[in-house]
Amino acid sequence: MEAAVTALAQMADNPGHAARLAIRSGAHSTHTAGLAPGYVQANLAIMPAADAQAFQTFCQLNPKPCPMLAIGAPGDPSLPSLGKDIDLRTDLPGYRVFRDGVEIDVNDDISGYWRDDLVSFPLGCSFSFEEALLLDDIPLRHVERNECVAMYRTNIDTTPSGKFGGKVVVSMRPMKPADAIRAIQITSRFPNVHGAPIHIGLPEDIGVTDIENPAFGGAPPRMRTDEIPVFWACGVTPQVAIEHARPSFCITHRPGHMLITDLKNSHLSVI
Amino acid sequence: MEAAVTALAQMADNPGHAARLAIRSGAHSTHTAGLAPGYVQANLAIMPAADAQAFQTFCQLNPKPCPMLAIGAPGDPSLPSLGKDIDLRTDLPGYRVFRDGVEIDVNDDISGYWRDDLVSFPLGCSFSFEEALLLDDIPLRHVERNECVAMYRTNIDTTPSGKFGGKVVVSMRPMKPADAIRAIQITSRFPNVHGAPIHIGLPEDIGVTDIENPAFGGAPPRMRTDEIPVFWACGVTPQVAIEHARPSFCITHRPGHMLITDLKNSHLSVI
Repeated sequence: MEAAVTALAQMADNPGHAARLAIRSGAHSTHTAGLAPGYVQANLAIMPAADAQAFQTFCQLNPKPCPMLAIGAPGDPSLPSLGKDIDLRTDLPGYRVFRDGVEIDVNDDISGYWRDDLVSFPLGCSFSFEEALLLDDIPLRHVERNECVAMYRTNIDTTPSGKFGGKVVVSMRPMKPADAIRAIQITSRFPNVHGAPIHIGLPEDIGVTDIENPAFGGAPPRMRTDEIPVFWACGVTPQVAIEHARPSFCITHRPGHMLITDLKNSHLSVI
Repeated sequence: MEAAVTALAQMADNPGHAARLAIRSGAHSTHTAGLAPGYVQANLAIMPAADAQAFQTFCQLNPKPCPMLAIGAPGDPSLPSLGKDIDLRTDLPGYRVFRDGVEIDVNDDISGYWRDDLVSFPLGCSFSFEEALLLDDIPLRHVERNECVAMYRTNIDTTPSGKFGGKVVVSMRPMKPADAIRAIQITSRFPNVHGAPIHIGLPEDIGVTDIENPAFGGAPPRMRTDEIPVFWACGVTPQVAIEHARPSFCITHRPGHMLITDLKNSHLSVI
């Protein structure tokens, strides 16, 4: 009873912290969509010392697809600037562990893999700006359909750093023209979660030749004739860079199984 | 000699005022493009008491095509909030005088037409945001070609007020997608000079069926395949509303012959 009251109080005070505790305890074990609404969720990449600096530079050189929300201290699984008592070894409901670029494990606890030289990179995620779009009554097709957003490989090169490089991956949301203009205004306020679109209309210009056949995300967007495609730089870009770089060891979040923080999405807005 | 020194000092101190003095004296008698660069130029509509309130409400209900920069006091040809010593009867290089909706005179001095009940409406003009776009290295086709921007009638209704109404007129600038996104960001900062675009791509959706045949402005924009059309609400909208309303008497600026103010374009930016 006392524990339940404490948990309720925590949830009211700090929904991000409450969600992490639920994940840490195993009470929540699936994807994080809809958890702690209003709070920032982050992609996660964890690199060993040998690759951390090159990956960090890759993110700094490519801030639109790889917006760093914080940088962990070497060997430290906490992230005090993003939330109270974060333990990156247990607080995500899913992780992928890679050795030499090959996935060797998928689990919900990486305590056994933790090392003193690991550096954590939480990266901004489009969930944050999508919330702002929905709050402004801009329809999002994939949300209405409960599908993953459509994502595409482009012909746009990232700026490489060491062995990290490759093309920019984009997510695409079909919008009516007036909504597209409004979406550009709204997402411009969120530079730490991909910011403004990088392309609009004319998919062929960025190497997207078949809009109804996304490379990631699965479901075709089924564009309507009164819509234009609006493209944002996407957090899959660093994942593709990691797969190409094949670091000797690294850990990422499992897709959709994000780090929930104590930051409000609205607080990421710069204006 | 002393007068020349004074004029030079004024020009250095206040280029807007210096330009108005040159126009008032007849030293400058043509269009105002390129005069007092960096300073706000305004469209002008002057209405008699019988129509002033309805026109003012029309502008307030349709702020994107009709952004009011100030409102003159009845019978007062000055506009102290827009500039030192403005005399609206002499300080524009060209006026059109209408009676019952018919143009009865085009001249450079309306002192003989001035009345105690006339109310002046200076309206924001796209010159201001075009300057901001050019300063950010966004190419503007019509500026490069020294042509008038392409303008079109749309199927979008203005919100009517009394006898003032009709469709929204838009100006269109062809842009590469990345420039279009940047242009939306930049012009969003300038709500008093038409602000963000009202449409992008898909001209047919707003009733523009032949993009290479503008209704106003003359020259076809000659769209390129790597460009999309970006549409802004246009200051020709109130002119069309006036032509339809046929007020018993009114005066407007002659196209391209604008009121030059003491306000810097950059000062209109809200962010």
